[in-house]
Amino acid sequence: MKMIKAIIRPEKEGDVLRQLESEEIYGMTKVDVLGRGKQRGVQVGDTIYEELSKLMLIIVVKDDECQKAVNAISKAAFTGHYGDGKIFISPMEEVYTIRTGETQT
Amino acid sequence: MKMIKAIIRPEKEGDVLRQLESEEIYGMTKVDVLGRGKQRGVQVGDTIYEELSKLMLIIVVKDDECQKAVNAISKAAFTGHYGDGKIFISPMEEVYTIRTGETQT
Amino acid sequence: MKMIKAIIRPEKEGDVLRQLESEEIYGMTKVDVLGRGKQRGVQVGDTIYEELSKLMLIIVVKDDECQKAVNAISKAAFTGHYGDGKIFISPMEEVYTIRTGETQT
Repeated sequence: MKMIKAIIRPEKEGDVLRQLESEEIYGMTKVDVLGRGKQRGVQVGDTIYEELSKLMLIIVVKDDECQKAVNAISKAAFTGHYGDGKIFISPMEEVYTIRTGETQT
Repeated sequence: MKMIKAIIRPEKEGDVLRQLESEEIYGMTKVDVLGRGKQRGVQVGDTIYEELSKLMLIIVVKDDECQKAVNAISKAAFTGHYGDGKIFISPMEEVYTIRTGETQT
Repeated sequence: MKMIKAIIRPEKEGDVLRQLESEEIYGMTKVDVLGRGKQRGVQVGDTIYEELSKLMLIIVVKDDECQKAVNAISKAAFTGHYGDGKIFISPMEEVYTIRTGETQT
């Protein structure tokens, strides 16, 4: 299994979730976060915003579903401007479902 | 070391923490999150709740404590209904304690 | 790549970010969390605070930048008292930048 953490623009949430659903990926956890990239925020007129509101979506998928999940997220979250976000993929050793007691590796 | 991320019902927080304490696991970090599983939320009457409030508990344990932590969480978080949550176990390469400078692997 | 999750005192955020910038590490994501360590919160007079507000900083760095990032965080977050926090280092398999389509491993 893989854990995918995607940092996206909050306004892209709906598009990203619908794109994931079209790939039959439904489960997700989300957290409001603040973030910035290498360019350290944005300047609008005279005002510098050092940190921007982002949404962190956490999804856990089987190894062979990881690429399609990344494709779905990146396609739906893309605008082409700074701040589109990042997708982090990390290894997951075990996933335990509390209701059923089922374990997946 | 392992990092355990448990997504649980918020109302089970007290039970889960007490169960972990009974196993001498005290340290934890928690975050309010929204989430949904494969069934995409719940329907109550005519209203569909696509996302539900959950609590993400993050705990880091030694490899040989991981199973008892998972057992404690899943026992205390269980109701038998959809939405009981998931427990994710991922590898942790190093844990550094800022106050003491101590490193654990 | 490595993912560094640092749980620090919220009031140390500015110092930690400036120290990371002095090492040319600019990108970060942050989340407000509640946490406690082995000592289970603090007692102030008669009042016990079981959980304390912390900041979780998430940064992703190349393997050879990990040590300097940990050094920067731990130096700037240190007070010497309980509650200075922890730094967790976990493996990251892939990082995808949505705007450019670039992948780093």
